Amino acid sequence: MSFHYQNGSLYAEDVSIMEIAQKVPTPFYLYSEQILRSQMRAFSDAAQKRLKSSLVCFAVKSNANPAIINVFSSMGAGADIVSEGELLLALKSGIPADKIVFSGVGKTREALTLAVEKEIKQINLESEEEAEMLNEIAAKADKKVRVAVRVNPDVDAHTHHKITTGKKENKFGVAWQEARPLYQRLAKTENLIPVGIDVHVGSQLLETEPFEEAFKRTAEIVHTLRSDGIRLQTIDIGGGLGVAYQKTDKPCSPDDYIAVVEEQLGDLECEIVFEPGRFLVAPAGVLVSRVVRVKHTPSKDFLVLDAGMNDLIRPAIYDAYHNIAAVKEKEATQTFDVVGPICESSDVFGKDRMLPAMRPDDLVVIETAGAYGSSMGSNYNFRPLCAEVLVSKERFAVIRQRQTFEEMLALNRPAPWL
Amino acid sequence: MSFHYQNGSLYAEDVSIMEIAQKVPTPFYLYSEQILRSQMRAFSDAAQKRLKSSLVCFAVKSNANPAIINVFSSMGAGADIVSEGELLLALKSGIPADKIVFSGVGKTREALTLAVEKEIKQINLESEEEAEMLNEIAAKADKKVRVAVRVNPDVDAHTHHKITTGKKENKFGVAWQEARPLYQRLAKTENLIPVGIDVHVGSQLLETEPFEEAFKRTAEIVHTLRSDGIRLQTIDIGGGLGVAYQKTDKPCSPDDYIAVVEEQLGDLECEIVFEPGRFLVAPAGVLVSRVVRVKHTPSKDFLVLDAGMNDLIRPAIYDAYHNIAAVKEKEATQTFDVVGPICESSDVFGKDRMLPAMRPDDLVVIETAGAYGSSMGSNYNFRPLCAEVLVSKERFAVIRQRQTFEEMLALNRPAPWL
Repeated sequence: MSFHYQNGSLYAEDVSIMEIAQKVPTPFYLYSEQILRSQMRAFSDAAQKRLKSSLVCFAVKSNANPAIINVFSSMGAGADIVSEGELLLALKSGIPADKIVFSGVGKTREALTLAVEKEIKQINLESEEEAEMLNEIAAKADKKVRVAVRVNPDVDAHTHHKITTGKKENKFGVAWQEARPLYQRLAKTENLIPVGIDVHVGSQLLETEPFEEAFKRTAEIVHTLRSDGIRLQTIDIGGGLGVAYQKTDKPCSPDDYIAVVEEQLGDLECEIVFEPGRFLVAPAGVLVSRVVRVKHTPSKDFLVLDAGMNDLIRPAIYDAYHNIAAVKEKEATQTFDVVGPICESSDVFGKDRMLPAMRPDDLVVIETAGAYGSSMGSNYNFRPLCAEVLVSKERFAVIRQRQTFEEMLALNRPAPWL
Repeated sequence: MSFHYQNGSLYAEDVSIMEIAQKVPTPFYLYSEQILRSQMRAFSDAAQKRLKSSLVCFAVKSNANPAIINVFSSMGAGADIVSEGELLLALKSGIPADKIVFSGVGKTREALTLAVEKEIKQINLESEEEAEMLNEIAAKADKKVRVAVRVNPDVDAHTHHKITTGKKENKFGVAWQEARPLYQRLAKTENLIPVGIDVHVGSQLLETEPFEEAFKRTAEIVHTLRSDGIRLQTIDIGGGLGVAYQKTDKPCSPDDYIAVVEEQLGDLECEIVFEPGRFLVAPAGVLVSRVVRVKHTPSKDFLVLDAGMNDLIRPAIYDAYHNIAAVKEKEATQTFDVVGPICESSDVFGKDRMLPAMRPDDLVVIETAGAYGSSMGSNYNFRPLCAEVLVSKERFAVIRQRQTFEEMLALNRPAPWL
């Protein structure tokens, strides 16, 4: 256990969170390098055990801190990127271009041009129109570009509707029936090489069943394409492996999940590309926050934190559950609504949570916040982006400084009237 | 009409949006100074006509651009602020301290200390615990601080549940039955002067009825407090006046709304403080975006824009409707789902929208985006904060530069291990 109580107080690895909070202003994200590494190892060990050829590409959208990405790149990970900014970020964070796959429904001409120039591993096409634009860009650059087609499996992921991505009414991918003729056209282009297929089901899946269904269809299309003379080399199956946000969540393990991959796709002699994000970083991060006020009302008691929905928007946008714990180890005796300071009723981190008696300046952690936490942070209510800290054994480092007031205003440089 | 078609193309005041988009990278927010001014004028004229004493305090959380705030400060507006950052921002944008009211459920010790030091108009207390902290701070600074109590009216605002703020189970304010003894205690403190009462119902209200109910209760408590010997001078009734996001929305006018204020509160001989945000800025701003891709699928056609939910999160978080229009004036003949490039199914700006035939690089505007647009923007998917432009008659100025890649990484300065 990398987050654990020791001498009556919560530690990240061998460092007391109270000690960090004396040196870093709250709120701040706190990550355990040990958990980042153990999550990555669990995933890649299962992949290596069960599959002849695989690549784990960290989904940078889940956490965009270069120091975090660097932990994964040092362990051999590639990157799944979705924008020009993420491409630059991945390269800067030590991911080699030939381990970068580019997904996303709205890749701009500029982004595609940069990806062609950098010779990344693979571009996942989301439409015929994108294929045309990319072929034109590749021709101009006189390059052959490795592409996959993102095929929409039309599978219900049984997850939150905002993170279901594989239904046919979603904006993503190409319908099954359109994929086959598109591959035929790709094979005839001058500058695109159809090397792969890409399938996404959704995010935060706890069961293997939707994966099984999607991978079965994927295998069928790989076989069909072979009969058409198109021999794919990579199958990119996206991310989606869920994590336990609450004790009752029982996510399947990487090994359960990759067993399904092996069963459905293992004998196709393709490299399997994985794009985990949440699985790798969510359990490694907590949001450390200080109690600003303990507010008693006739109907409820509120714990008002110095962290708000601008720091962690998942509860407000996805009704996400995050466990909340006191840093001082004490018996939980009271029920609180744990809220942020933002002027919105949705700025609530948890309702009716059992916690110890709390006082202003006491510390709490909002758990399992490493993914889609800081990467979705904003300046709403003119609050600075918070600091981020990485712990490694008995040391810690500030891997993102808290923004200053001047930095928040830096883009508002005086410009002339035109 | 400040946004209007002229010579077959959409203009902001006297400037062609197409011309601006040749000089400023899309997406960008575009504001009309004329609309900002006419909204402010409509509001303050109605207030001056119907009320003996009033102050319009712009709710800075709705739009944090100093150039926008400056338009209102130049017209005599005050500011409603909710954080330390917003206090500094309002002062920097030309709002005098004696026109600033400080709201919010989680004001930190640092923020309250700064507000006391700057001698702002009024601090709206949200709990007894906050009153205690503020009295202590004021005593230390040897100052007398003007305060109001935010009283929770327990009224149903008939608006989106995430922006209803006046129900008793919300985190905001003090229950009616608690307010009276709290005022008694405030009157006995050394350093706090209870000068006002503060009541909020919610945001984006289209009818006057919830206001009427809340203001009636407010008048009752003002009378009750007088019988207790506490004579309030200000009644802060917050914001909440809605705008027409779609043609079927029929919001009440400022005059309709202020007629209700006059009827319920006009004879109390108090200054009425208003905190409009959305009403002042929403109609003045559009998000200008370029088509990245027109994607045809068997079930739907998608218009993929270069703007995403990181630029405008209202549709994703509140299921908000924004009208979408083509910049080139053409007959609407096709139905599109208008989506952003972000890898989330909720990154959709509008479903089944009638628009003209569109091609990549064509421009669209997402309307009524001046409030809670840029102020909620983020770097999600490692996308830069977009530019903001202000138009005034035949001129325009970039009032926020688009963020660069280097600026997005600026907080990730190397820090030593501690």
